[in-house]
Amino acid sequence: MNIFIIGIGLIGGSMAKDIKRLRPDAKIYGIDTNSSHVEEALALQIIDAKADYDELSSADMVIVSIPVDVLLTELPRILDAVKDDCVVFDGGSTKSLICKTVENHPKRRNYLACHPIAGTEFSGPSAAIENLYDGKTNIICEVEKTAFKLQEKTLELFQQMGMRIRYMNPEAHDKHIAYVSHLSHISSFMLGKTVIEKEKNERDIFDMAGSGFESTVRLAKSSPAMWTPIFEQNKENVIETLEEYIGNLQAFKELLVEDDYKGIYKEMNDTNKIKGILNGIPLNKK
Amino acid sequence: MNIFIIGIGLIGGSMAKDIKRLRPDAKIYGIDTNSSHVEEALALQIIDAKADYDELSSADMVIVSIPVDVLLTELPRILDAVKDDCVVFDGGSTKSLICKTVENHPKRRNYLACHPIAGTEFSGPSAAIENLYDGKTNIICEVEKTAFKLQEKTLELFQQMGMRIRYMNPEAHDKHIAYVSHLSHISSFMLGKTVIEKEKNERDIFDMAGSGFESTVRLAKSSPAMWTPIFEQNKENVIETLEEYIGNLQAFKELLVEDDYKGIYKEMNDTNKIKGILNGIPLNKK
Repeated sequence: MNIFIIGIGLIGGSMAKDIKRLRPDAKIYGIDTNSSHVEEALALQIIDAKADYDELSSADMVIVSIPVDVLLTELPRILDAVKDDCVVFDGGSTKSLICKTVENHPKRRNYLACHPIAGTEFSGPSAAIENLYDGKTNIICEVEKTAFKLQEKTLELFQQMGMRIRYMNPEAHDKHIAYVSHLSHISSFMLGKTVIEKEKNERDIFDMAGSGFESTVRLAKSSPAMWTPIFEQNKENVIETLEEYIGNLQAFKELLVEDDYKGIYKEMNDTNKIKGILNGIPLNKK
Repeated sequence: MNIFIIGIGLIGGSMAKDIKRLRPDAKIYGIDTNSSHVEEALALQIIDAKADYDELSSADMVIVSIPVDVLLTELPRILDAVKDDCVVFDGGSTKSLICKTVENHPKRRNYLACHPIAGTEFSGPSAAIENLYDGKTNIICEVEKTAFKLQEKTLELFQQMGMRIRYMNPEAHDKHIAYVSHLSHISSFMLGKTVIEKEKNERDIFDMAGSGFESTVRLAKSSPAMWTPIFEQNKENVIETLEEYIGNLQAFKELLVEDDYKGIYKEMNDTNKIKGILNGIPLNKK
């Protein structure tokens, strides 16, 4: 079995690590526009060989883990190149535009639209982690448009990786993920910015930061090259979540201005129920 | 040596656990308005005995770890009750108002104004952790107002707990801590609120949340009883940080509205330097 990974970073590299364990007979080929990523992945034994698009015709499975803007141009080319019984799946954080882009592609049935909800704030082959996907949710969109046999072999792999599968249409995916992922990234980046701006004149400020601050700004370490096209493709939903978030922050500020501490207590007390909700979220052990 | 802990929760309880190891001869007394906390602390062997204010005259050291509004009324009463060579210190997240409150107290020299930057989102005696303070920063305000011998014995204990000591005036403390702690809590609470509000109609949304969301909303599990008076006492600084944060979020939204993706990339790329800054922050192992 020949498995090609296009984009060998955290997502693709972690897939490769699990596949090496679960499919010891598979040969894993890596393709990346960043040649140092290819060399690093070879050195780390994440991939067995480097490859290019000309070799895609020999692939049985292609995992495309590249920024969502590049995905729009590359996925049709990849589908053009693969044979009839090859499955191609992605890991992009947006689903509507990509599904629309390949809607009428003659090999649409070879594509499975996926979003495994897993990752860390790090990137590149060295960020790849074995068992990253264990216990995580994988959202699959428009499953009915993928050939049944290809669904079957891919889902078997996902299940062996320990993933929980959820089916959703691309529009619902993009709307919901804006709340539970895209907004968190913006809140974290802007919190980091606010504190860094202040720190310019106040050198001691980070000496005072504890683990609470670290947790809240962790996502501000994320890759701008990955996240810019996500925000672009999910612009309308992200703007909506940002407006609601800004509105809630303004209302909290008003309560402070008006010395309404009963109101402030209530806001926090009502939100404490996040405890119960978070208990259901599978977390990275790392 | 008799050590009294007033308020036996995460902060006071974790102090008690370290003291038991570092001062095996000390007897640790616990005072708490919540009698179930006292019973729990006894059962967990965090304290050796329960006590009340009448017994404070026998104390050599009093650790006051109670919400900052209660601290304002209790600290003067505690100082009234202690003997001349007893040191009283607190762990409050605001420092200006408490220092002002005891400014002219006849036993001002018995008080050391402290803020150990340590904690988790949990509370109560069961949240107490051994070595919570190891590697953490402890901000001490107006150190010159505390009797030298009392400074000395308290700092020796803090150093044995592994804390780094920083000296600061109360106004600078309150201004800086608003950025690196108080704002993080509000951003987290309001993020939780925004997503919970959405979830009312969208039951599946949390199935899609990953570890990034969990990290960003972790602080929304914090105690409203502890945090409401902190925001009240640090109102002016907190409002300032909130306005800057809201301004940054609005500017980010505008970049999205205007399709300025170069600008969005730059915002995130500039904030990525938080990586280097965070590497210097001591974190909880828990």
